[in-house]
Amino acid sequence: MNADVLKTGPKELENPGVVLLLAQTPNAGKVTYLTEELKALGKLDSYTVIPISFAKNEQKSAWFEQLNANGRMPALLDNRPTKGPIRVFESVSILLYLAKTYDTDGAFWFKDDDDLQTELVSWCAFTHGGVGPMQGQCNFFYRYSPEKIPLAIKRYQDETKRLYGVLEAHLAGKHDGQEKEWLVGGKYSIADMNAQPWVRMAVWAGVELDEFPRLSAWVDRIEQRPATQEALKIPEQDKLSQMKADPEAADRMAKAASKWIMQGQDKKEDK
Amino acid sequence: MNADVLKTGPKELENPGVVLLLAQTPNAGKVTYLTEELKALGKLDSYTVIPISFAKNEQKSAWFEQLNANGRMPALLDNRPTKGPIRVFESVSILLYLAKTYDTDGAFWFKDDDDLQTELVSWCAFTHGGVGPMQGQCNFFYRYSPEKIPLAIKRYQDETKRLYGVLEAHLAGKHDGQEKEWLVGGKYSIADMNAQPWVRMAVWAGVELDEFPRLSAWVDRIEQRPATQEALKIPEQDKLSQMKADPEAADRMAKAASKWIMQGQDKKEDK
Repeated sequence: MNADVLKTGPKELENPGVVLLLAQTPNAGKVTYLTEELKALGKLDSYTVIPISFAKNEQKSAWFEQLNANGRMPALLDNRPTKGPIRVFESVSILLYLAKTYDTDGAFWFKDDDDLQTELVSWCAFTHGGVGPMQGQCNFFYRYSPEKIPLAIKRYQDETKRLYGVLEAHLAGKHDGQEKEWLVGGKYSIADMNAQPWVRMAVWAGVELDEFPRLSAWVDRIEQRPATQEALKIPEQDKLSQMKADPEAADRMAKAASKWIMQGQDKKEDK
Repeated sequence: MNADVLKTGPKELENPGVVLLLAQTPNAGKVTYLTEELKALGKLDSYTVIPISFAKNEQKSAWFEQLNANGRMPALLDNRPTKGPIRVFESVSILLYLAKTYDTDGAFWFKDDDDLQTELVSWCAFTHGGVGPMQGQCNFFYRYSPEKIPLAIKRYQDETKRLYGVLEAHLAGKHDGQEKEWLVGGKYSIADMNAQPWVRMAVWAGVELDEFPRLSAWVDRIEQRPATQEALKIPEQDKLSQMKADPEAADRMAKAASKWIMQGQDKKEDK
């Protein structure tokens, strides 16, 4: 990292300890689910949240690119007392870093069982390379794109449902005969945190959860945790709660997001 | 895993040690790049490759789902001498498992430097959640879909180029002032192996590498390694070499793949 460039960003980047750069997105939710759990257990005293505005394109500023050259959220900066600052990017990498660094006895991962930890990493990768990107494409074609392309909407909704089906079958024990409350090793772990923020937003992608009863129950189980409820207010109240409180909020949020998303696409055309 | 169901698969699943289930795809290439490097260093004596036929839908069979419930390649089974069999799925998870288990002194990862290993995991996640899925969508809309949708082709080619641009800027030292030969820590690592099999196939996605000179040089640097050349023959000669040897091969391969890919889509319609 270039300290001079970093100094051109918000002053809070100099706060000691964990600094999260995020907006209210599923990938950011993954991280706050964990930080709030760690706070609840006293493993993390406090941390700094710097909300990033997509509308202002802050994630493309030079100082943000020091933390994540990909210009995506979330990003993490940890101003460590002795070892100096470190940057971590990509939601799943941040989860693994926070777990290893602050959850040192493995409440939410498998410190003492390499095989379960391998299984955890496999499921994390499944979500990171599958559910997230594919559901994200649903969101684009179903919610944001002014041009509605039935083949594309169907392609990504079908794929999202297929991936939900994999999770449903896993929880039902289809392949190993073991019904499960959690994705890995019989406890709530970062494998669950990595996936639930996407699945709970199925409605945003135009996908119904009705045909996935175990997955729905798993979503609710995680949703009801006090730490999750806290996390869903960071940096502002989550989209789903806003939609429940105000049925017209969905349209308004989709229109606002569509505007800057399509501006981003148009900018690419200028090149 | 259910041993009885696994027994309904190929006999080679019982071979001792590492068993890879794969086809000639970028995600499978990631894994054979590493296994061949480990063989070259004497860290892995030998391993079994079981080629999986997409055309026969083998990846959807009950025995394969024991190894990867997502029905995707690659998958790994390790019949360990003392600890019993373990399954690992998702390319990046397999790389991390093989590194930890067989590359015990960290030739291709950062065993003794937690910060560099965190940076490695971030770049691996960047590829796994970005380059792979987005370039994969390019392939679908540009090569396989019978219906050509300009907005979709452009969206995914633009996004693939944007992601290549992130890699190019990183290698050029745009953000940290350090020109690089490798993505992380000044040595060839699984972060590179995780990305090159996708970037070398840019042409398949209809994307030119000309505007990314450092990335092109990095592709060639990895391509020329003896282990890479061996890996590219597993389980059959790679697509790019076939295309170079026979200009009409691209059309033939695209048509063959399109057939089973579109059959998969139609099947979903039947549900």
